[in-house]
Amino acid sequence: MINRGGKIVNNSKVSIIGVGQSVFSRKGGLSIRELCFEAYKEAMEDAGNLVSQNIDATIVCTAPNYDNQRLPSPLINEYLGLTPKPTFEVATACSSSSTGLRLGWSLISSGLHDVIAIIGFQKMMELSSQEVQQVMGKADDIMFSAPFGTMMPIAHAMYARAHMAKFGTTQEQLALVRVKNSHYGVSNDKAAYRKLLSLEDVMQSVMISDPLKKFDCCANADGASCVIVARSDFSKSVHDKPISINGLGMAVEKLNWSARDSLTGFDATRLAAAQAYKMAGLRPEDIDVAEVHDCFTIAEILAYEDLGFAAPGEGAGLIEQKETYIGGKIPVNVDGGLLSKGHPVGATGGSQIRTIVRQLRGEAGETQVNNAGVGLVHNVGGVGTYANVTILGR
Amino acid sequence: MINRGGKIVNNSKVSIIGVGQSVFSRKGGLSIRELCFEAYKEAMEDAGNLVSQNIDATIVCTAPNYDNQRLPSPLINEYLGLTPKPTFEVATACSSSSTGLRLGWSLISSGLHDVIAIIGFQKMMELSSQEVQQVMGKADDIMFSAPFGTMMPIAHAMYARAHMAKFGTTQEQLALVRVKNSHYGVSNDKAAYRKLLSLEDVMQSVMISDPLKKFDCCANADGASCVIVARSDFSKSVHDKPISINGLGMAVEKLNWSARDSLTGFDATRLAAAQAYKMAGLRPEDIDVAEVHDCFTIAEILAYEDLGFAAPGEGAGLIEQKETYIGGKIPVNVDGGLLSKGHPVGATGGSQIRTIVRQLRGEAGETQVNNAGVGLVHNVGGVGTYANVTILGR
Repeated sequence: MINRGGKIVNNSKVSIIGVGQSVFSRKGGLSIRELCFEAYKEAMEDAGNLVSQNIDATIVCTAPNYDNQRLPSPLINEYLGLTPKPTFEVATACSSSSTGLRLGWSLISSGLHDVIAIIGFQKMMELSSQEVQQVMGKADDIMFSAPFGTMMPIAHAMYARAHMAKFGTTQEQLALVRVKNSHYGVSNDKAAYRKLLSLEDVMQSVMISDPLKKFDCCANADGASCVIVARSDFSKSVHDKPISINGLGMAVEKLNWSARDSLTGFDATRLAAAQAYKMAGLRPEDIDVAEVHDCFTIAEILAYEDLGFAAPGEGAGLIEQKETYIGGKIPVNVDGGLLSKGHPVGATGGSQIRTIVRQLRGEAGETQVNNAGVGLVHNVGGVGTYANVTILGR
Repeated sequence: MINRGGKIVNNSKVSIIGVGQSVFSRKGGLSIRELCFEAYKEAMEDAGNLVSQNIDATIVCTAPNYDNQRLPSPLINEYLGLTPKPTFEVATACSSSSTGLRLGWSLISSGLHDVIAIIGFQKMMELSSQEVQQVMGKADDIMFSAPFGTMMPIAHAMYARAHMAKFGTTQEQLALVRVKNSHYGVSNDKAAYRKLLSLEDVMQSVMISDPLKKFDCCANADGASCVIVARSDFSKSVHDKPISINGLGMAVEKLNWSARDSLTGFDATRLAAAQAYKMAGLRPEDIDVAEVHDCFTIAEILAYEDLGFAAPGEGAGLIEQKETYIGGKIPVNVDGGLLSKGHPVGATGGSQIRTIVRQLRGEAGETQVNNAGVGLVHNVGGVGTYANVTILGR
């Protein structure tokens, strides 16, 4: 079993032996092959003794339609010198690379492969902003929801309003999430936004969809991430600090929001978390550090509750009492989160995993959580539609 | 071990317990949820005692961008009553549902799930023909190939010309593939084309890309397929004739054709076949019936050679001597193939698997291959870019 903060017995079948990511940026200019190379190179260097010949397969995680290239996975394989290794594209919107990790775990556990590179990318600066909005709009049910003009900020504003009405959550409490995440984003040299924001800055930013203001929202970005996973019995020969995958959970909500049971939390997160905790044999209080899917400030507060870090309705209190800062009860998004890093959809999960892996190895520098032994990654696709929860341990 | 034509000992970890497909059609009109329901319903009825509560997860296999709906997998899950079961989208172009089978095999073999529905679909009649061509064009490298106007028929015509130049293959021999497949397509009540074509019909059809004429080419279609896989120890309680997955192979070619080593065969198919034969402990001569990826007539001839049914350069002789008809050395595409059925990209692999499963169960009616014990499915994505080879047994 695993002890909080203690040394973990690596009894998992699959370990993470390398992590990397590109700079996340809104400047554009890099092709998808260049973005993926940047992430792959860092992950391979991180994986020490590994060479490309050791990679058995790649999983390319991306939300389709945001750039012009179809069939990106053989293109990326070719550029990375990995032809003719198997590769495929997997998509669960913003949680694609966490789903990639789940599949990588399975492909290795099943005995089909030994080492897999999970590459997430998104290039969102190639199309016009209007075209990107159109793609995003069609991520709602095009028969029953999209015709009403629903969009990501509007949907999350609806969840925020419901949470405010039921639990008395305030706009200031939402804003405090961005204040925390901007505080940590300053230290992240891969983040698109590294400016410290005050409560006043967030509250005075322009309204996007009431009650969500500009700084309550994360921004699209170009970026890539790479996570290299391997059979645990092979991992030790490659990396002196392999990180084990101890818990995997995944669940999916109805795409059609009007058919959902609750607007004050995401059922898919709750179910995915329950699966991951059960598989790892852990409870929420065993987690030392977490990355949660803060696409909007409200989403981080919902995650506190859905992951069991706070009781329903008490998520806002957690940020107000600074319990999700380093030194608090459960440090969350100490890399700045999506709000600071930017959100290159398919790359985001891999970036979250990278952060937790570096925390568990004690390599997180000035944002290191003291003696972090167990970490959690929470990654959502769509409006709480797909949810992946992954528990990693030393 | 497995004996040709004999009873197979089901020693595989994963079995197929249900198969279904919609009618493949160019008439349009059905939504993606309706297409998938049609396939899922047939597969569930085929799976006998199975109920939807037994399904642990779905894998939705589709080439993105051919219709307007983004995030189709939660939408389909919802319509099939499968929320909140995990679901994700997987894409390897035209071989997406064979890749889905590979992932389904892994998710079950790894112990993560017990029963999975692999749902392939494509809706190609929603966008205009010009828009569909644009999507297909971007399946080439958009920096180095697509700007030259390369398209599927053009690329395959290049392979055909190379084969003709090197081995003396003739246009009449290519046409004989379509004659055979139309012969069997007549009996397939799910096929888009059920008209018997003569050699003259094919030779006199309009030239598309020299030497490929209209009837050398398969056609886009709307359609869906469903394959239900389960842990083998569970399968017997559901279906009295579970079909075991004995071999899985997958390899990928360079997307950029100008960088390829050969234009007279597909390296990815050769590698994928070698993997599948090795895993199954079989040789090409052990296969009783095969489905190969005949997106163009030349592609079926290349498949004969790449799969080891004929030596390099001798594929055209195989069709000329009618060795790939029922009663011949190795019956191929006795459901009419993509040329008769139409090719709804993401659904095609599942349809091929369905045909082989029915053959191995002895349920193929007038196109039954006598005492078929081992079958092979060859499914390609792009221009020989992705290749999956799957070997199934009784």
